[in-house]
Amino acid sequence: MKRNLIPLLAALIATASADPLPSWNPGPAKQSVIDFVEKVSDSSSKDFVPVAERIAVFDNDGTLWCETPLPPQAFYAFAEVERLLPENPEWKDNPAIQALQKKDFGPLLADHYKGLLDIIAKSHADRTPEQFSEGVTNWLETAKHPKFGMAYNQTIYQPMLEVLSYLRDHGFKTYIVSGGGQDFMRVFSDKTYGIIPEQVIGTYSSATFEMKDGKPVLTKGMDNLFIDDKAGKPEAIHRFIGRKPIACFGNSDGDQAMLEYTTIGNPRPSLGLIVHHTDAEREYAYDAKPIASGKLVTGLEAAKEHGWTVVDMKSDWKTVFPE
Amino acid sequence: MKRNLIPLLAALIATASADPLPSWNPGPAKQSVIDFVEKVSDSSSKDFVPVAERIAVFDNDGTLWCETPLPPQAFYAFAEVERLLPENPEWKDNPAIQALQKKDFGPLLADHYKGLLDIIAKSHADRTPEQFSEGVTNWLETAKHPKFGMAYNQTIYQPMLEVLSYLRDHGFKTYIVSGGGQDFMRVFSDKTYGIIPEQVIGTYSSATFEMKDGKPVLTKGMDNLFIDDKAGKPEAIHRFIGRKPIACFGNSDGDQAMLEYTTIGNPRPSLGLIVHHTDAEREYAYDAKPIASGKLVTGLEAAKEHGWTVVDMKSDWKTVFPE
Repeated sequence: MKRNLIPLLAALIATASADPLPSWNPGPAKQSVIDFVEKVSDSSSKDFVPVAERIAVFDNDGTLWCETPLPPQAFYAFAEVERLLPENPEWKDNPAIQALQKKDFGPLLADHYKGLLDIIAKSHADRTPEQFSEGVTNWLETAKHPKFGMAYNQTIYQPMLEVLSYLRDHGFKTYIVSGGGQDFMRVFSDKTYGIIPEQVIGTYSSATFEMKDGKPVLTKGMDNLFIDDKAGKPEAIHRFIGRKPIACFGNSDGDQAMLEYTTIGNPRPSLGLIVHHTDAEREYAYDAKPIASGKLVTGLEAAKEHGWTVVDMKSDWKTVFPE
Repeated sequence: MKRNLIPLLAALIATASADPLPSWNPGPAKQSVIDFVEKVSDSSSKDFVPVAERIAVFDNDGTLWCETPLPPQAFYAFAEVERLLPENPEWKDNPAIQALQKKDFGPLLADHYKGLLDIIAKSHADRTPEQFSEGVTNWLETAKHPKFGMAYNQTIYQPMLEVLSYLRDHGFKTYIVSGGGQDFMRVFSDKTYGIIPEQVIGTYSSATFEMKDGKPVLTKGMDNLFIDDKAGKPEAIHRFIGRKPIACFGNSDGDQAMLEYTTIGNPRPSLGLIVHHTDAEREYAYDAKPIASGKLVTGLEAAKEHGWTVVDMKSDWKTVFPE
């Protein structure tokens, strides 16, 4: 019975609390989130939305956690290849590995990302999901962000954690819809964001099933790669969820398609929100020219046109990372 | 708050009820389901499983609803092509359509199912998900099963509806994992089985996103077809759910891989169950030689080896379809 009482109590506590988003400064961004959540969950409102349709989707890199100087998954791939190098001495002759060791990323991107895909294969494929999870778990315990010196699962945005909880307390199902690897994010999403594995959608490729010595085994591969970015995001939402979200949170042009899908012509009220990285001191400031990922140009134009909330990280957020 | 009270009340009612599976005759099949559900949901049992991990997967064709003489989706495809024929007079010269009209299914299967894929394309692709749903909804309202004279969403198994409810009342999340089309099943799964769209996994192909005259549009296509059958089932479970189920229900060799994945070497207690179609009078009797789908040979052998429950439809089920 306990399982049914926990959300009930959480909802009661949330209702009683004066401010559901304490890390947000007062202003139109914060207010837009509160107004939206209040109207769709108020059964006497004309904008009421039944619980089953309260689906919210969140990009991860740059929306829930820091994606600069590189998305953490890239650091994982590099670290994993380094870790495996002693067992694979022949890798030393591989141009991609050599480029990586010189921190010369250009060659990795040449020839349709051939080198980068090789690094991803060496760090992600030809292992079981269980082996992969173990590798990510171990890495998360020791790796540190180069600027902040914190574990990558701590360089997450406290104001967005509050939005996640606030939505869930009001009956929303919260999903990640990210260009990051699905298996990668599922290792930490529950503990880090309270988002369970089956609500994590991301980039994926095949995992092949076979019976091996009488045991069922899945082996991660690189074929049938699906990139969950740009138009891929609404396509993945349709494939994995099968209904239109009513709230969508992103930070880059890669999120524009799912923001459009969520907010334009939706028969239900909807909320689109873009986190604009404007805080060079507490985090990073970028839009048109990010270091690696998170380019935001057309998304800002579309935000004006469609009335999406644009969060100015510097002025709208009281704190960035959890204390 | 209502949303939190409903499962609570349902659980209380289920606990108070004497028999959670009234359409099942007493016997080892029924008892195996009850014993499993009781032990995994009893917090004082060594076999207790936390709610988050109580994932149950169900095949659809032949497990939740009747798949004979053909899976209903095939009848839908045929009816939809017939419906569209007047608007597409050139289809009359198409050999697949000609075969269909003569009810001569052989040519549809020749040359790697070329004709059948053409019928599926004409009835499923080049339309939005909303248009597709509308077509299926309209068809379900009028189409009747050739033997039973009932709508296809009534040729469902009452004993399995009881298992679905019983599991959900004990904290299980119930999923469909079927070779049937994902978009097809999502049209009726919630109303018919209480299984919401995001818990329906099936065969799918691409739906392409674009902005068209300023509106977001998804268009169903035929490329990147993923067949959710045999080894594809555990692969899809990993992709969509990201964790191993503890209960798996099927009826054919096509379900064997997901039964193996669920039950062999699972660190949690698990249940595998096969519905054996043994009732020629009330439904159909088939295993090695089904009319179209549902071949069951190696699955029966594997059931013996791995201790899966085999339901004898004729003797284990008091009723087949809902009254």
